[in-house]
Amino acid sequence: MATVVMKFGGTSVATIERIQNVARHVKREVDAGNKVAVVVSAMSGVTNQLVAWVKEVSPLYDAREYDAVVATGEQVTAGLLALALQAMGLKARSWTGWQVPIKTDSAHGAARIIDIPGSDLKKRIDAGEVAVITGFQGIEPKADRVSTLGRGGSDTSAVAIAVALEADVCDIYTDVDGVYTTDPRIVPKARRLAKVSYEEMLEMASLGSKVLQTRSVELAMVYKVKTRVLSSFIAPDAMKPFRSDNIENIGTIVCDEDEIVEQQVVSGIAYAKDEAKVTLLKVDDKPGVAARIFGPLSDASINVDMIVQNVTPDGKHTDMTFTVQAAELPRALDVLKKAKVDIGHFDVKSSADVVKISVIGVGMRSHAGVAAQMFKTLSEKGINIHAISTSEIKISVLIDAAYAELAVRTLHTVYGLDSD
Amino acid sequence: MATVVMKFGGTSVATIERIQNVARHVKREVDAGNKVAVVVSAMSGVTNQLVAWVKEVSPLYDAREYDAVVATGEQVTAGLLALALQAMGLKARSWTGWQVPIKTDSAHGAARIIDIPGSDLKKRIDAGEVAVITGFQGIEPKADRVSTLGRGGSDTSAVAIAVALEADVCDIYTDVDGVYTTDPRIVPKARRLAKVSYEEMLEMASLGSKVLQTRSVELAMVYKVKTRVLSSFIAPDAMKPFRSDNIENIGTIVCDEDEIVEQQVVSGIAYAKDEAKVTLLKVDDKPGVAARIFGPLSDASINVDMIVQNVTPDGKHTDMTFTVQAAELPRALDVLKKAKVDIGHFDVKSSADVVKISVIGVGMRSHAGVAAQMFKTLSEKGINIHAISTSEIKISVLIDAAYAELAVRTLHTVYGLDSD
Repeated sequence: MATVVMKFGGTSVATIERIQNVARHVKREVDAGNKVAVVVSAMSGVTNQLVAWVKEVSPLYDAREYDAVVATGEQVTAGLLALALQAMGLKARSWTGWQVPIKTDSAHGAARIIDIPGSDLKKRIDAGEVAVITGFQGIEPKADRVSTLGRGGSDTSAVAIAVALEADVCDIYTDVDGVYTTDPRIVPKARRLAKVSYEEMLEMASLGSKVLQTRSVELAMVYKVKTRVLSSFIAPDAMKPFRSDNIENIGTIVCDEDEIVEQQVVSGIAYAKDEAKVTLLKVDDKPGVAARIFGPLSDASINVDMIVQNVTPDGKHTDMTFTVQAAELPRALDVLKKAKVDIGHFDVKSSADVVKISVIGVGMRSHAGVAAQMFKTLSEKGINIHAISTSEIKISVLIDAAYAELAVRTLHTVYGLDSD
Repeated sequence: MATVVMKFGGTSVATIERIQNVARHVKREVDAGNKVAVVVSAMSGVTNQLVAWVKEVSPLYDAREYDAVVATGEQVTAGLLALALQAMGLKARSWTGWQVPIKTDSAHGAARIIDIPGSDLKKRIDAGEVAVITGFQGIEPKADRVSTLGRGGSDTSAVAIAVALEADVCDIYTDVDGVYTTDPRIVPKARRLAKVSYEEMLEMASLGSKVLQTRSVELAMVYKVKTRVLSSFIAPDAMKPFRSDNIENIGTIVCDEDEIVEQQVVSGIAYAKDEAKVTLLKVDDKPGVAARIFGPLSDASINVDMIVQNVTPDGKHTDMTFTVQAAELPRALDVLKKAKVDIGHFDVKSSADVVKISVIGVGMRSHAGVAAQMFKTLSEKGINIHAISTSEIKISVLIDAAYAELAVRTLHTVYGLDSD
C-alpha cells in the first residue's frame, strides 16, 4: 500500500464529464489499496476570467484581493471532484489551502510554501478518505489571508503535499503523455523520455518546456519526491495503479540521476521564444559600469539572463549585450533611460526577434566536446550566435528567431535523440 | 458619525460596471464620515451555475461540499468590490465568512448564525477601512468547514453583521425601491410604505413578498436593528448619506412599531402562489387522528400551514384540509400513502391551483372588524374561501388561483391603501 499524490490541471477538469473521468483515475488507485491525495487546478478558463475581472476593476490591483478572487476557481473544482468521488462510493472531502493549512509567505500573487503541518489531513487519508486539495494556493498565517503561488503553482502544491505526506509518488496528470527530448510539434522524431533527472527537468522547465513549473521541480529535487508526468486523457482503466516495486513504463519519471541506468550525454533540446536582446553600445569602460547597468534593472525586478561584454578596439569603451523576458523589454528600456545619468553615454539596440536554444544533459559533466559540437553544428548551418551561457549540465545560445526550428531539429539529430 | 451596514444583492453586482456603481454608493457614506461594512451576494447567475454543477455531479450531494462550492460566488464579488473601492482611493479589504469569523451551526446548506466575534473586523472598520464581507456564508467551527445559510441568506448575514457592529442602520439595497402595500405589478395603485414594523414585515416576508428573507427580519426584530430597503439602481449621488438624526424619506424603514407615528390598521396585502391544498375525506374521527396525519409529514420535514377540520353530518368521520408548499405536494402525498395503515381509511383530493391572500397590519390588535370586512368583500365578489388562518396581526385565506388578482386589488381598495 502506497501513498499517492495525483495532480490534475485545468484542461483535465474543464467540464463535469472530465471531472468524472478524473474521479475514475482516483478510484483506480483507491481500489488498489493506495492512500490518495488529489490536487486540482481551476476548470480551464475560469482563472483567466477571474484575472480579467480583477484587472478590469483595478489595473494596479492589491495582490491580497487578487488572491482572494482568483483562488476561488480551485475551490469549485475541489468540491465538485469530492462530490464525483462520493457519487462513485468513495469517501472523499475537499480541502482549501487554509483548511489543510498550506502556510505560505506573504508575497501575495507569487507566494512560497513555508510549511504544511496537515496532521488532520494525514489522519483522514490514513483512514481511507480521499483528500481533494485546492492547488495554487495557501494561507498567509500572519494576516490569515488567502495567498496564491502564481500561475502554474498547482504543480508546486502537489509536490509540497507529497513532501508533507511522505508520499511514494507525485503523479502530475497533464495534457501531454510525458516529457519529450524536444517539442514534438517542431521535431516529429522527438522521443518520450522514460526517466529524466531532477537537474535536467529543472533546466527544461526554466528554459520554456511548460510541462512542469520550475519551483515544483526544485522542491521535488530537494526532497527527492519521485514525480511522474502522465496524460489525464488516457482511459482510467488502461493504466495500472501505482506500485512502488513495479512502475509501468508510462509517462515520464522525474527522479534522482542515480536511478537512471542508461544515462544519455544529452537528454533534451529546449527552446525559449520569450527572450529579448538588449545591446548597449560604446559604454564608457570604467570600473563599476556593470553594477550601474544591472543594479537598476534588478531594483525593478527585471531578471537578466545571458550577459556578454566586448571591449571595443580602442580599449576605452565596451559593448554590453544581455537578455530579458520579452514582456519586460519596454520596462527594461525605460529603466535604462532613467539610469543614463549614472551609466554615462551609450547607444541602445534591442530586439525581441531572438530565441534561446539549450542542449541539456547530466552526462555533460563527464563528457567533453558537447559545446564544441553544438557550435560547429550551428556554424555549418550558417546560424549566428549572439550570446552563450552555460551551466554544468546545459549550454544555451541566443540566435535569430528565424532559425529556431532548423537549429532544434539539427541538434536533435546530431545528439542522437531522433526516434527510429 | 454612524456605523452603516450596506447589503447588495446579486442583480446589484451582476457586472463590473454595477460593482463600480455599488462602490460609489459606499464612497458616498465614507465621504460623509460614516463607518461602513458592506455585505455582498454572488454576481447574478453565478450561484445558479454552481448549484447546477453540484447537482450534475451528484444529485444526492454532500451538503458540506455543496457549501464549499457554492460559497465561492460571494468571495469573488467581495474581492472585486474591495478592489473597486481601493481604485476610488478608499481603504478597503474583503472578508470571507471564516475570516470574520461568522460562526454557524452545522446545518450545512441552511445553517444558522450563532456568533460573530469579529473584534479584528471592528478594529479595522473603526480605523476607517471599509469591510467588504461575503454574504450567505459562515464557518462551522467544530470541523472548520464553510457553511451557507440557504438562498437569500445574505440579508441575514447583513443584519447579523449589523448586530455584531452595533450599527446604526442596515441598508438592504435591492432591485426595488422599498416595501409596497402590495405587488405593484398586480395593483398599479400600490404605495411604497415609508415605514413598516418588524412584525408586519415578518408576515409579508413569510407570505411571499420576496423583498427580505424571513430570518433576516426575525433577527432585526430581536436585536432592534433599524433596517432600510433601498434601490441600488438609484444614482449614488441622488441619495443623501445616512444620518441617524435626519433620515431621508427614501426606501422603506423596517423598525419598531413604536417608531411609526401614523399607524394604519392594515398596512399591506400579501399573496403566496406556491401553496397547495390537500383534503383527506371521510377519515375515521378517532382520538389522535390529527397526530397520525401530521406526525409523518413533520418527520419528513414537510411544513403544514393552514389546517381546517370538518366533522361529517353522521358524526363518525372528519374531513381534514391543509396546505403545504406546492413543491412539496408530491412528497406529501407519498408520505400520506405510506401512513395509510396508521391513519385508517381516507380519500384524498389535492390541488396546487390555490393562492393564499393575507391582510396584514399591527393596527388589527386594537381594531375589530378587519376580518369581517375581508370575508364580506370576498363574498361580494363571489370568491369562495377554502381555509382561513389568523395571527394577531394577520388574516390569511386560501382561494382559487383564478381569483388572486381580483381579490388583492379589491382588498387593497377596501382597506384604503390605494395611492391617489
